Amino acid sequence: MARDLRSPVHGKPGEVSFRRAARADVEPIVRLLANDPLGAKRERYELPLPQSYLAAFEAIAADPNNELVVACRGDDVVGVLQITFTPGMTYEGGWRATIEGVRVDEKLRSAGLGRAMIEHAILRARERGCRLVQLTTDKTRPDAKRFYETLGFVASHEGMKLQLR
Amino acid sequence: MARDLRSPVHGKPGEVSFRRAARADVEPIVRLLANDPLGAKRERYELPLPQSYLAAFEAIAADPNNELVVACRGDDVVGVLQITFTPGMTYEGGWRATIEGVRVDEKLRSAGLGRAMIEHAILRARERGCRLVQLTTDKTRPDAKRFYETLGFVASHEGMKLQLR
Repeated sequence: MARDLRSPVHGKPGEVSFRRAARADVEPIVRLLANDPLGAKRERYELPLPQSYLAAFEAIAADPNNELVVACRGDDVVGVLQITFTPGMTYEGGWRATIEGVRVDEKLRSAGLGRAMIEHAILRARERGCRLVQLTTDKTRPDAKRFYETLGFVASHEGMKLQLR
Repeated sequence: MARDLRSPVHGKPGEVSFRRAARADVEPIVRLLANDPLGAKRERYELPLPQSYLAAFEAIAADPNNELVVACRGDDVVGVLQITFTPGMTYEGGWRATIEGVRVDEKLRSAGLGRAMIEHAILRARERGCRLVQLTTDKTRPDAKRFYETLGFVASHEGMKLQLR
């Protein structure tokens, strides 16, 4: 799917397309993940890439209920997100789509790319017959909360995390 | 796994065991889901059960990255939760465990059963090598937030939902 982004502000992203990530995309994906205030603390972008990233990519690619999506401008990967489709007993046995790991190239932020990416994920959720789309966003990113609210998301829940080591 | 629950208050749950749900458990699971202030609005407990619940059970049972767990006292199903194991690119390609659809039989609430169920889910997350455990809890259930905090969860995120129809 290709689309023109409206209202570019900081950049002029022009035509951006979305596709499932390929193995060759893992390096630019990790670069995007690490280039972020929170990601800088917990990712390791070095070449060769840590094997754990490639193993994760293979696990996602092998799972029909997970999609790793990249946004591309020409040959460049400029955005990434992951969608997990989950069958559940609640909502009369409804499926959920969970969005994780959303990152946009810093050169293209505020240019509508993030919005187009989330709209793409919502479209995929509808195509898969999901009853709801959910995500959590760190409370230290208040702009992100407002951004998702403009897309129709409601901050009705606490997002609780327990780190394991 | 069987364990004695400590500090029973309203009930005396005695020995409770956890196991993967079987198809015959779908009916008591839906009964638990519907017997809840939020569940009452969105579940449909009637016999025969709506087909959508059985289809959801089959989808969960067929997915190696999803576990529907029931807590049993003797032959009775007294609790349910679902764990989804998700490979991800973030956290150096770490796996996450997401807990959904936690319900405890009203006769056994505040008796330690919910705690034992979440501890079981955390154990399963460790066994699967997960980097973190996550869940969302409705902000209209402040007691639930405090309960999860006593288990080590941190309400660091907004849990955002978009209902689709």
